[in-house]
Amino acid sequence: MHTLPSLVNLSLPDWVEREVDATRIYADDESRVALAIQLAQRNVELATGGPFGAAVFTAEGKLVSVGVNRVVPQSCSVAHAEMMAYMLAQTKLQRFRLNDPDGEFVLATSAQPCCQCYGATVWAGIDELLIGARAEDVEELTEFDEGPLPADWVGDLERRGVRVKQDILRTQAREVFVRYRQLGGANY
Amino acid sequence: MHTLPSLVNLSLPDWVEREVDATRIYADDESRVALAIQLAQRNVELATGGPFGAAVFTAEGKLVSVGVNRVVPQSCSVAHAEMMAYMLAQTKLQRFRLNDPDGEFVLATSAQPCCQCYGATVWAGIDELLIGARAEDVEELTEFDEGPLPADWVGDLERRGVRVKQDILRTQAREVFVRYRQLGGANY
Repeated sequence: MHTLPSLVNLSLPDWVEREVDATRIYADDESRVALAIQLAQRNVELATGGPFGAAVFTAEGKLVSVGVNRVVPQSCSVAHAEMMAYMLAQTKLQRFRLNDPDGEFVLATSAQPCCQCYGATVWAGIDELLIGARAEDVEELTEFDEGPLPADWVGDLERRGVRVKQDILRTQAREVFVRYRQLGGANY
Repeated sequence: MHTLPSLVNLSLPDWVEREVDATRIYADDESRVALAIQLAQRNVELATGGPFGAAVFTAEGKLVSVGVNRVVPQSCSVAHAEMMAYMLAQTKLQRFRLNDPDGEFVLATSAQPCCQCYGATVWAGIDELLIGARAEDVEELTEFDEGPLPADWVGDLERRGVRVKQDILRTQAREVFVRYRQLGGANY
């Protein structure tokens, strides 16, 4: 107990770089959420973390960063997909608020952000949040809990300049949790 | 834009290891919050981040990890003091939920957690949250915003097994923000 840890090192699985096309333009909401869902699905199949994926884009659809859930493999409750995507985007752009001083950024996530990722979304500097599965889908199909949110969580984000769009490819997003259950739900 | 970042590296400032006594027992609430306040104060004086500090202890008062705000120096909106302390404690103990399967853990923080750190507190695996300054102190004395929280944020934590104690050394905790203002408030 007598030494203090001072370094946090988190990483994405190796397969991410091989499987994600970082050169294409993700022009519409569906293609952006589809990438987040694909990441969630592969994370489950390859047993590299929980059934969640996310990605940060510019307004034009250039890919800035991606994230997948890494909680169990990296012993870190902060390592949710959205948190990984935010931290990696900020590292890449060397800004602690992505849209300051300029630019417009979008987070696409395979499922509604939990209470932690919700709070992080307030500070990350994005302008739009695209969501696949609903919180009720997560809680119906998995053991995960979304945690306590403000009663008007959408309104609180919109008043801070973050547009929220829900139910994008919801059916496909739900399928990730079904697959996760089929595989035993061991990694979360 | 065509390469995807895959590594997140965050660290505490070098002075932390020299200034914090990791061998002593922090037996009571006041000594635990006093350490969080000392960390916040030094972080301001040494210009290594914003005016916030935190620490994780065992129930007996052994120090597990400490954190200070590193948002600006490390270009990362996730790098709040509480988040750093949680991630470092989990890294040290190699558990993504500190109190699972056993043990009791306490987070002391120099100021009420913002919306992001609040959400992280739900998942980190602590049993008690000790708070110095109130959110209203932060908002009165600095430019920081605490973000949207559930209406009954204390009750929501307590129902999930996290006891909350507020106003511990509040006067001293407020002084950090006064000092931060005197120094120009440049790092946050």
